[in-house]
Amino acid sequence: MFNKILIANRGEIAVRIIRAARELGVETVAVYSEADKDALHVALADEAICIGPARATDSYLNMNNILEAAVATHAQAIHPGFGFLSENSKFARLCEEMNIKFIGPSAEVMDMMGDKINARAQMNEAGVPTTPGSDGEVYTAEEAIEIANQIGYPVMLKASAGGGGKGIRKVANAEELIPAFNAATAEAKAAFGNGAMYIERMIFPARHIEVQILGDSQGHVIHLGERDCSLQRNNQKVLEESPSVAIGQTLRDKITGAAVKAAAHVNYENAGTIEFLLDEASGNFYFMEMNTRVQVEHPVTEFVSGVDIVKEQIRIAAGAELTVKQEDIKPQGHAIECRINAENPKFNFAPQPGKITNLFLPSGGVGLRVDSAMYQGYTIPPYYDSMIAKVIVHGENRFEALMKMQRALMEFDIEGVTTNIDFQLELISDAHVIAGDYDTGFLGNTFLPKYLKED
Amino acid sequence: MFNKILIANRGEIAVRIIRAARELGVETVAVYSEADKDALHVALADEAICIGPARATDSYLNMNNILEAAVATHAQAIHPGFGFLSENSKFARLCEEMNIKFIGPSAEVMDMMGDKINARAQMNEAGVPTTPGSDGEVYTAEEAIEIANQIGYPVMLKASAGGGGKGIRKVANAEELIPAFNAATAEAKAAFGNGAMYIERMIFPARHIEVQILGDSQGHVIHLGERDCSLQRNNQKVLEESPSVAIGQTLRDKITGAAVKAAAHVNYENAGTIEFLLDEASGNFYFMEMNTRVQVEHPVTEFVSGVDIVKEQIRIAAGAELTVKQEDIKPQGHAIECRINAENPKFNFAPQPGKITNLFLPSGGVGLRVDSAMYQGYTIPPYYDSMIAKVIVHGENRFEALMKMQRALMEFDIEGVTTNIDFQLELISDAHVIAGDYDTGFLGNTFLPKYLKED
Repeated sequence: MFNKILIANRGEIAVRIIRAARELGVETVAVYSEADKDALHVALADEAICIGPARATDSYLNMNNILEAAVATHAQAIHPGFGFLSENSKFARLCEEMNIKFIGPSAEVMDMMGDKINARAQMNEAGVPTTPGSDGEVYTAEEAIEIANQIGYPVMLKASAGGGGKGIRKVANAEELIPAFNAATAEAKAAFGNGAMYIERMIFPARHIEVQILGDSQGHVIHLGERDCSLQRNNQKVLEESPSVAIGQTLRDKITGAAVKAAAHVNYENAGTIEFLLDEASGNFYFMEMNTRVQVEHPVTEFVSGVDIVKEQIRIAAGAELTVKQEDIKPQGHAIECRINAENPKFNFAPQPGKITNLFLPSGGVGLRVDSAMYQGYTIPPYYDSMIAKVIVHGENRFEALMKMQRALMEFDIEGVTTNIDFQLELISDAHVIAGDYDTGFLGNTFLPKYLKED
Repeated sequence: MFNKILIANRGEIAVRIIRAARELGVETVAVYSEADKDALHVALADEAICIGPARATDSYLNMNNILEAAVATHAQAIHPGFGFLSENSKFARLCEEMNIKFIGPSAEVMDMMGDKINARAQMNEAGVPTTPGSDGEVYTAEEAIEIANQIGYPVMLKASAGGGGKGIRKVANAEELIPAFNAATAEAKAAFGNGAMYIERMIFPARHIEVQILGDSQGHVIHLGERDCSLQRNNQKVLEESPSVAIGQTLRDKITGAAVKAAAHVNYENAGTIEFLLDEASGNFYFMEMNTRVQVEHPVTEFVSGVDIVKEQIRIAAGAELTVKQEDIKPQGHAIECRINAENPKFNFAPQPGKITNLFLPSGGVGLRVDSAMYQGYTIPPYYDSMIAKVIVHGENRFEALMKMQRALMEFDIEGVTTNIDFQLELISDAHVIAGDYDTGFLGNTFLPKYLKED
């Protein structure tokens, strides 16, 4: 096991990793921007090093400064968390060159799964269903029309090098295609220096079902069941749960089996997630993408599987075998996570940084967990993500989990900043959500308009 | 299910019960003394009623005021928590007369098990091993000597109506017996108006092993495994864990079997605990007493069994069957609880009431729970118990649980009052505790002298 690791992140995920490391007897180094000197991850780590100014590009994305901090503190490994450098293969490669273990998959696998066309090709090879679409890169609107005619409208145009929603267009019919393609490829060229596109049939209505994967360096690959993350706003997940109410055991076995096949095909090591879109009516599901890192919603799976995913990540990176076998995983009960953001749902979810003048976090009782980097008196800086806490509950069944979530959200007391807690309370009280009857369009198209009309 | 219940308690257990009730969709009424108007249980409950001045005898022990509050708020049931009126059969009987359900066993069973001589007789009938001792009440030192000669020294003298450590004497030999008996019976007469004593052989060294029991009104009785509560100071538990490292599966089956037999024999309804003393060398165990209420350390069992004991209590009182059968209970992993008290371990554990000027409670990660009624700015009143929080952890195994506990205790930040957190940190770092090698005398006789000498 490592003696010391560096955490190249901030906020609740940095705190989460520090806690896991400490429970493994591993010392921790926090890195922080000038805006984060009073952050909780800095206070909780054994050591802390400032890596630059507030702007993420100057600090949390500054590979040189982070690697220098690792060298200076003799950290043997770096945990990247999520976001920032977590899916940056160049950073993983630099770590490797400096003989610092990157806690994640190899740079090669990150490249393979990060490039969307490459990933699709890998999945086709592995026999994992992908959305009907182009086999490779598409450079002209003419090619695009030909392919779209074959696969049928509506289609999605996506930048091959894409990310962050850039270079993406929904296209309903042939007339829309040419202008959309030209706009998207120009946007992609500007954003990524690469105008290559690919085309997929649009799966809608759909549920976002993802499968948590763990692989070790001995070649074992297991899954920890699925999560349903269909409650999204602009592709940002808002509430996640496991298991999904949309799938029975037969379909569950198929989807999780496909995910294991996908990960095994690329010799995947460490924690990762295979995301699928599920056409609920037909039961068909399609590979969407792989996230080669721990995810925000991993605690949902930790509750139902009993596996500490972050500890497994660290152990795997240190060369250990998985502590569990597939047959040991017996999902128990139902877990739900609500993301708590400092934002104003009534004003287009505008971020609400500021000082937390009073804070009471829900706690106690059975099956409740709050992952947060907040404390009373903490000032949320305006530079980063607005997520300030995750509330995760675990019940015997989905109804009990919903009741627990309601209890927990009602206990929250945050003064000084506006949050989405009331929004989440209304969401879990919505009849469709209670019934589990929602798809990826539900929150934005149905719930939100109703919510905004209420005042 | 009830629409509304009243919680006749304060502090973390009142908060715990409010949380459980809310998750069941049951409204709650808090009662509070004048010293507790700013207490968390008052803020969290749906309604709150002041029941008198600070002194417990004027408020939390004031049966009339509590019953009046229940009537005024139309509460259908009263949860007594632990301490205060929880083992008061007169209160249970008054509730019954007023058609308010007492969330606990019947007054008759409380009487039967609350009287120690009666309880011993019941256990003998049920075939549950009791300590060798007097069959009934002993009124004179001469009788006492005769019995002690039969059962062998050392012996314990205990007041029949005892409680709170009053009227108890350890006696090493015949010379000590007469003065000890006379002092104890006088003390008992003064404290309880009843000088009757009984005599038991003293089991020492011993481990305190207790078994959590649940019984419903349909006659089902199950156990949720054992807890080892041997780490005590002056008969006050300090750290509890489950399972006990002192017993293997054969002995576990015997002890839990005896506990179920004991509870079934008295038609026990609701949650209760059968406490045993275990002679580790011989594997013999002896019934000590039954607690006819929920216990401080119940969360340890909740973690390993997955059963929410407080919710079960409320359901049982409402007439429901147990939600689990004995064969459903498959204990998982290892759980430990540390009691956090506002006290000064360096000054004979003197209580340290006062204002909490800064507070950070450990949270997040897998398998951690903190039950507390504290918040930043809260003033701990001097009138009640000094316990301010319970930290409970759950690991795959005992070592992981100990590492988690260390992580959690290190995260705590309480300013304004002195606590036993450092004491607990040293306790879980002690080689004997890490090895699980301790008995009921270890903390007071071995650990504490070493701890006090350190400065």
